[in-house]
Amino acid sequence: MNSTKIKAGIIGATGYAGAELVRLLLNHPFAEVTAAGSVSFQGKKISEVYPSLQGACDLICCSTEEVMAKSDVVFACVAHGMSQDFAAECAEKNIAFIDLGADFRLEDEEDYKLWYGAGFTRKDLHARAVYALPELFRDKIKTSRILANPGCYPTSIALALYPALQAGLIEKNGIVIDSKSGVTGAGRSPSDTTHFPACNEAFTPYKVAAHRHTPEIEQTLSLAAGEKIKVVFVPHLLPVNRGIISTVYAKLTPGTDLDTIRKTYEDFYKNERFVRLKNGGETANLRDVKYSNYCDISLHTDTRTGTLIIVSAIDNMVKGAAGQAVQNMNIIFDLPEDAGLCIIPPAF
Amino acid sequence: MNSTKIKAGIIGATGYAGAELVRLLLNHPFAEVTAAGSVSFQGKKISEVYPSLQGACDLICCSTEEVMAKSDVVFACVAHGMSQDFAAECAEKNIAFIDLGADFRLEDEEDYKLWYGAGFTRKDLHARAVYALPELFRDKIKTSRILANPGCYPTSIALALYPALQAGLIEKNGIVIDSKSGVTGAGRSPSDTTHFPACNEAFTPYKVAAHRHTPEIEQTLSLAAGEKIKVVFVPHLLPVNRGIISTVYAKLTPGTDLDTIRKTYEDFYKNERFVRLKNGGETANLRDVKYSNYCDISLHTDTRTGTLIIVSAIDNMVKGAAGQAVQNMNIIFDLPEDAGLCIIPPAF
Amino acid sequence: MNSTKIKAGIIGATGYAGAELVRLLLNHPFAEVTAAGSVSFQGKKISEVYPSLQGACDLICCSTEEVMAKSDVVFACVAHGMSQDFAAECAEKNIAFIDLGADFRLEDEEDYKLWYGAGFTRKDLHARAVYALPELFRDKIKTSRILANPGCYPTSIALALYPALQAGLIEKNGIVIDSKSGVTGAGRSPSDTTHFPACNEAFTPYKVAAHRHTPEIEQTLSLAAGEKIKVVFVPHLLPVNRGIISTVYAKLTPGTDLDTIRKTYEDFYKNERFVRLKNGGETANLRDVKYSNYCDISLHTDTRTGTLIIVSAIDNMVKGAAGQAVQNMNIIFDLPEDAGLCIIPPAF
Amino acid sequence: MNSTKIKAGIIGATGYAGAELVRLLLNHPFAEVTAAGSVSFQGKKISEVYPSLQGACDLICCSTEEVMAKSDVVFACVAHGMSQDFAAECAEKNIAFIDLGADFRLEDEEDYKLWYGAGFTRKDLHARAVYALPELFRDKIKTSRILANPGCYPTSIALALYPALQAGLIEKNGIVIDSKSGVTGAGRSPSDTTHFPACNEAFTPYKVAAHRHTPEIEQTLSLAAGEKIKVVFVPHLLPVNRGIISTVYAKLTPGTDLDTIRKTYEDFYKNERFVRLKNGGETANLRDVKYSNYCDISLHTDTRTGTLIIVSAIDNMVKGAAGQAVQNMNIIFDLPEDAGLCIIPPAF
Repeated sequence: MNSTKIKAGIIGATGYAGAELVRLLLNHPFAEVTAAGSVSFQGKKISEVYPSLQGACDLICCSTEEVMAKSDVVFACVAHGMSQDFAAECAEKNIAFIDLGADFRLEDEEDYKLWYGAGFTRKDLHARAVYALPELFRDKIKTSRILANPGCYPTSIALALYPALQAGLIEKNGIVIDSKSGVTGAGRSPSDTTHFPACNEAFTPYKVAAHRHTPEIEQTLSLAAGEKIKVVFVPHLLPVNRGIISTVYAKLTPGTDLDTIRKTYEDFYKNERFVRLKNGGETANLRDVKYSNYCDISLHTDTRTGTLIIVSAIDNMVKGAAGQAVQNMNIIFDLPEDAGLCIIPPAF
Repeated sequence: MNSTKIKAGIIGATGYAGAELVRLLLNHPFAEVTAAGSVSFQGKKISEVYPSLQGACDLICCSTEEVMAKSDVVFACVAHGMSQDFAAECAEKNIAFIDLGADFRLEDEEDYKLWYGAGFTRKDLHARAVYALPELFRDKIKTSRILANPGCYPTSIALALYPALQAGLIEKNGIVIDSKSGVTGAGRSPSDTTHFPACNEAFTPYKVAAHRHTPEIEQTLSLAAGEKIKVVFVPHLLPVNRGIISTVYAKLTPGTDLDTIRKTYEDFYKNERFVRLKNGGETANLRDVKYSNYCDISLHTDTRTGTLIIVSAIDNMVKGAAGQAVQNMNIIFDLPEDAGLCIIPPAF
Repeated sequence: MNSTKIKAGIIGATGYAGAELVRLLLNHPFAEVTAAGSVSFQGKKISEVYPSLQGACDLICCSTEEVMAKSDVVFACVAHGMSQDFAAECAEKNIAFIDLGADFRLEDEEDYKLWYGAGFTRKDLHARAVYALPELFRDKIKTSRILANPGCYPTSIALALYPALQAGLIEKNGIVIDSKSGVTGAGRSPSDTTHFPACNEAFTPYKVAAHRHTPEIEQTLSLAAGEKIKVVFVPHLLPVNRGIISTVYAKLTPGTDLDTIRKTYEDFYKNERFVRLKNGGETANLRDVKYSNYCDISLHTDTRTGTLIIVSAIDNMVKGAAGQAVQNMNIIFDLPEDAGLCIIPPAF
Repeated sequence: MNSTKIKAGIIGATGYAGAELVRLLLNHPFAEVTAAGSVSFQGKKISEVYPSLQGACDLICCSTEEVMAKSDVVFACVAHGMSQDFAAECAEKNIAFIDLGADFRLEDEEDYKLWYGAGFTRKDLHARAVYALPELFRDKIKTSRILANPGCYPTSIALALYPALQAGLIEKNGIVIDSKSGVTGAGRSPSDTTHFPACNEAFTPYKVAAHRHTPEIEQTLSLAAGEKIKVVFVPHLLPVNRGIISTVYAKLTPGTDLDTIRKTYEDFYKNERFVRLKNGGETANLRDVKYSNYCDISLHTDTRTGTLIIVSAIDNMVKGAAGQAVQNMNIIFDLPEDAGLCIIPPAF
């Protein structure tokens, strides 16, 4: 019965993360989209913006106020710097707030200033916000009402490295992360770099060692390592719609072998619904996680050089954004964690 | 509870249509896959063949006998000529049989001989088989236990043309059908024409005016027209994974205008869950139906030449194969027709 | 020696057609690019706009005046309505003018008004301009200094249909043209429809029976037919960078068979360097003409319905734009027609 | 005049490298393809195998004997293990031999045994063979008649790392190489991994730290380093037809900054026609080298971690195979090194 369903509102519903939230929530057994906020398309049906939604969702895009008025939980999919006020308003009205942007991800305001060019506007809220990567911080998420949904690259990287770092299987220094993302990662707005003839049959890194996700990645990995660490992070633009592959390189600590590593990861993720470890000889492939909330991880060692190579694959729009946000909603509303997320990735 | 679910077995589960059936049935509320038959991969987990299924389905590929033994309904995804014996066996054992191949699609044995090079081996069964395009032949499907699931191109074309032909809005002669299909239509086996560098950044027609789906298309359209008609049909290979666009051209009968046509289609499809008519100014796009059971149809007239142009879009693996097969299963088992098929097509 | 090379200037050099002209002219044995005009990028190196040109062309984008001052021949790659003044200036200065836009393509001002929304501003020049499709109008091109380089779709269609129409092998009415173009056809400017995630894994028609190339197509075909004819023309957007496939359907006149048709085309094109007729059983594929000036044509009949099906393939940026423009330059400067155009299409 | 042109024969002309050699040599001013050897297609026109060649090359595929009989230089594009006998025969007949396979690339027979599973069959020839990467070993190439054309990955990596290693700008240990290759790298034969629906919209590493190019990479880098070094090398399969991007990570030696590095590379490559260093702020992109013999290199430092990041881009079929082979032919026949290779990469 609808009256008992969780009312989910979205600010920025016509961006890619917002549209993906709509897609996922429409199939959620215990939640429903009650408001799709959009500044650019207010008054238009969301199915006019995304014709794929025709017949499935004919919500008319509304104002932020209307989103607030109609929601038990608000998902914010807006540019950085804008979420803090929305969070404040939600806090006042006792609405759960899940931010898909960067505003609440970094604990250290100096880091935020350095990489985002502005300070925290609501320091009190930052103290209450939780970095919401369920597989790592589920307990804290449960009791919070302001969640910072992790970035797409950081999700793929934290899940790949956390167990090894925490268990001391790899050296803390010299970690290299080479990531590749589909074009939806650049969002809905057309640009020179996302113009089809410019990125089709093309491949290049971008923001080399200068991507804003770097401090977020380091924040989580430092927790795992028990000390502040730095990593090299280079993202690339992949000519596919969706998905992130992160290939991670780290020095093995003396005496560590592949069996130990595999055992550590199996233990770490044994109760995790959305993490799949590949068998020996298999590699994580973004094809196999597309449209789903899975993170596939394959573990490899280069014994010639004493290197651990971890490959993780996620769908950047699902586990890397909207799916993880729904997973977080499920946690704070005490629902089955996979409600609405039992999507089988299509094989092709 | 599983014990009350319909037991669905698949012969040829490791082909593309079979794998897609697995994906859809895993999310079906009232059915479950009980047996995945495969000659090539017997003894292997299906998730080894399709790693996307890891964790979601770890069925081990089995023999045809085992499929028969474990199923209330059998889906056959095999090469033409092979289904008739399976159907006979199912008929004997009172198992519902849904054939995704061509064996039972044509009523006229001469047509079958001409296009497939062999006669009917079980004429008695052919008399009982129903051509199972739900939007057109739902009543007959309900009472049958041997269903010929339509071909992908014929589905996209029949849904596009049936209303106009039946209502006499277009001339019966001179219909031109220009179709474009994604590469999954060619199946799972690698070949020169489906090798990535051969079909990526490429586009070409194939089997020009000589595709085996032609008699199937004409059989349905002749029913709509009330007399035997012939069409020109040219398929093309599109460098995408999934989807069929059929662009159909027909001469308007005197006095017919776009409003009349639109009204006719709206009436015809008003209760159809899976057919979406596009609004004026919009065109059907395979992007908007991907991974779903929808058929999107847009209607256009060229008043300069008195031509009706109909564009239909389906996912060849869903509405064009496995999805329609599940829809048919739902009908014969008296389930909600969209059970397991409430898939929102992802916007990107 | 450069001093004897033809000086070629380009207005609108940073659009896709302009950039392709630069690529082709850099390899031309008897011509050189002396000026690359660009309003948007004036003062910037063209190799900053197109890094592929680094080291090969470091021209700095200049004003239209500079283009005029430095050129024996001017290529104009600008929006419609803008070329007529440039042509007038070139005519005054005795500079050959090759227009890659639509301004001089249509002979009938009424047609131009109807489809482009404005009249001819320089009627005198229109009288002197020639529609420059070399394979059809070579003699007229030779003696003209104002050339209207044909549109991409019209080129692919005129070459496909002219011989059959002229020879009376097909009915003049009821011709259906279903064309598919790569995304470069939409030009260099990013837009919602050319955003990678919007057109990758997508396919749809656009401007159904309403594309501006329609009157241009009909003008040439009417010449072939010896009377005014109309056609149905529907273009589609193909998720590849380059290329156009036009699939053309026409009623065979009584008694015409494939041999007669093939013979007619062989005779018609026997001296044509850039038209390749496919053998029986082969189909024209845009893969095989990519990056080259070829037009591949395959001929097919559907004897069941008495239909001729012609498939033509060109690279929309070469034979459909810049390559044909260079071919035209070669003709008016009395150079070997294939100078600079001996490009072997890469097989993959 | 043909009689004075170098006669080039190809063994294995219908594989991808062979077909690319044909494309390049057809435009070579001082060489011509006189024989296209093929076991699989003997007696067939090569333009039947690659219709793109129709009209440009109608050579009939011939035997190896015929290739030998008609050539001044033989290019071998065959599986490893097969070239040594061909080389011996060429040596006897005083035919120059350029091997595009692996047989002569490794100096250390133990390495060859370890990675290729067999020893050298003609040790005398190995002593005379030269590893033919022109930018590094031009002088030795000039005087040899048996050339080992480098592998595609090793080319992209050696050009990226040689200057820095040789100049001592980076640590010799801990180098990480993350490479991504287009699907043509897997060759012409269809397979499960190169089937369009399996690799389109997909991305995954393969042969993680186990690719046969590893010893070849280390052999060249060890030369640069002045001592034996080991690297981590992980290749990935990119859903594009052509191109390799290698992203290389190395620890900066103390006191090294980006300016020093840039200056070193500028000096090293200042006379190299085919190496293009990107300006600061730009990144190497495989789009910009497609179909050409260029290697684009961009240099980046991560000062936070003291890391040099080098990105190199080549076309795997040109600079990574056939183009480099033609460059080598030019060197040994004392032709301009860029003869036949002045290809401007298309911008899209």
